[in-house]
Amino acid sequence: MIESDLLKHIYSRSALLRAFPQVLVGPGDDCAVVASPSGGQLLLTVDQLVEGRHFFPLGAAPSPDTLDLIARKAVARSISDIAAMGGSTLATLATACLPPSFPQAAADILFDRMNFWAAHFAAPLVGGDISQGPHAPSPSESPLVLTTTLIGVPHPIRGPILRSTARPGDVVFVTGRFGNSLASGRHLSFTPRIAQAAWLASLGNDSPTSMIDVSDGLGRDAGRIATASAVHLTIDAALVPSHADCPDWRRAIADGEDYELLFTLPPHVDPAGLHPPPNVTITRIGHVKQGPPTCSVRAPDGVLIRADGLGWDHGAA
Amino acid sequence: MIESDLLKHIYSRSALLRAFPQVLVGPGDDCAVVASPSGGQLLLTVDQLVEGRHFFPLGAAPSPDTLDLIARKAVARSISDIAAMGGSTLATLATACLPPSFPQAAADILFDRMNFWAAHFAAPLVGGDISQGPHAPSPSESPLVLTTTLIGVPHPIRGPILRSTARPGDVVFVTGRFGNSLASGRHLSFTPRIAQAAWLASLGNDSPTSMIDVSDGLGRDAGRIATASAVHLTIDAALVPSHADCPDWRRAIADGEDYELLFTLPPHVDPAGLHPPPNVTITRIGHVKQGPPTCSVRAPDGVLIRADGLGWDHGAA
Repeated sequence: MIESDLLKHIYSRSALLRAFPQVLVGPGDDCAVVASPSGGQLLLTVDQLVEGRHFFPLGAAPSPDTLDLIARKAVARSISDIAAMGGSTLATLATACLPPSFPQAAADILFDRMNFWAAHFAAPLVGGDISQGPHAPSPSESPLVLTTTLIGVPHPIRGPILRSTARPGDVVFVTGRFGNSLASGRHLSFTPRIAQAAWLASLGNDSPTSMIDVSDGLGRDAGRIATASAVHLTIDAALVPSHADCPDWRRAIADGEDYELLFTLPPHVDPAGLHPPPNVTITRIGHVKQGPPTCSVRAPDGVLIRADGLGWDHGAA
Repeated sequence: MIESDLLKHIYSRSALLRAFPQVLVGPGDDCAVVASPSGGQLLLTVDQLVEGRHFFPLGAAPSPDTLDLIARKAVARSISDIAAMGGSTLATLATACLPPSFPQAAADILFDRMNFWAAHFAAPLVGGDISQGPHAPSPSESPLVLTTTLIGVPHPIRGPILRSTARPGDVVFVTGRFGNSLASGRHLSFTPRIAQAAWLASLGNDSPTSMIDVSDGLGRDAGRIATASAVHLTIDAALVPSHADCPDWRRAIADGEDYELLFTLPPHVDPAGLHPPPNVTITRIGHVKQGPPTCSVRAPDGVLIRADGLGWDHGAA
């Protein structure tokens, strides 16, 4: 089953949501946006991290360093969803479904480190649930399944930055560099772009016009902005900043798990002149126009190719 | 591993939380309580439902009725945690880690019904995440693992009703009836006591003084109020209302998954005179005094026995 198919199925049922005026943005963006009865808005997101799917199988005695990286990724991935809305973090909830033979010392380290990383990213771990997978029906073990729920708030003036509000004429930008995240280990050790997101949300004048975090590949996630906004995005492959260890431009656009920000700005806004936070580059990589709600990539040889299928889908592997 | 041991481990790390003034109640109650930057408070809780542990193994082709009951339980259990704080519901997030061969039609039904039940309980499903368990490392399948995160708000005047604020002299009450929840199927079809909780939260004058929902057995959960409040609870077994199909008083006190409310009231408050919602009984079953922070049960023959170990622990089975 392909995750995006199943998510579409959920969205198609969202008619039920119309009965609930507190739901400002339902499923389909990086976070849901819900109005709090006491005023203000909440950003809500949850992600899973599954052994053997989102990280390598752990074996019988995972090392403290390995557990630390998994704990970090479990938290950081959801933090990145808050960043993608231009928000700031409030609190974290976490769950673990442990393999029956998972050593207690390893479980202790895992939760210590989730607690540590949640606090590190200013999203204190306030609750959770721990369970064990069954021995039955399988004679062997169930995988480690972690979930992380993040509660955040949008920028108090800008409000949430959606993926559905890019406009023809906008320019497409990214933070950081792309490609080879899995082999390099960066998919475990990335820093969510919460500082860059806060800076972007404070630019004013509807800038950025749209934003997403790049989890499933630059091409695929650019296609999501295009589809949600009903515009066409074109990315110039020669402009996409790639990591030194990324073998080619296709991988920079197709690999997943970069957790950089992809956003659109009106054409008159030059972010370089607006004092972005240091140490993370911001690069113009393309533009938005009217057209089919997809993303095209201009290859270095000038040929235009459809980008949507280049990224990867967690559920399709 | 025993869940309560691991949760203790988490609580012992909560020193980190002191750096975050928004955290009003951290791990250890039915919900965390977090202050929203725009004013007001949030109730946050997450629970897991694991195939082969919290419900029977599904087999290759689960029926729509079975999927509906599992979806209902996944949502209702977290709704019950909001009820236990005297709160009302705002939104739901859900995740599913599906066995690799889980039929797409079954996944569709599962999420349709989670969507339905979330709306039914006034907690619209606003987001989620779907993944698949790995084929490796196991040659057989990983279990279905569901999580449900609930976001709620406390009663606007009373605030959250904690398990740590029972007082010597208080009287112990419960809603509904107890025992035999698993064999009878009530663990799948119970109604969370959100209406009764709202009524209780509106009583005023610090009533109820404490509250918890009975998930792990009346004796064990009464012991949790005792420990958190540093008081001694005594339950009179002859007063505990049991279901007609519950074979004896021990089972009424020891069985889990009743999802009734257990609460304490000051001695001068008689709930019968205060117009409780109809159709669910409210019964006095014991009292609170100074003493060891545990719960005792007075058996029908008058002998006092320690109740804390009578309930069950999800992680210990």
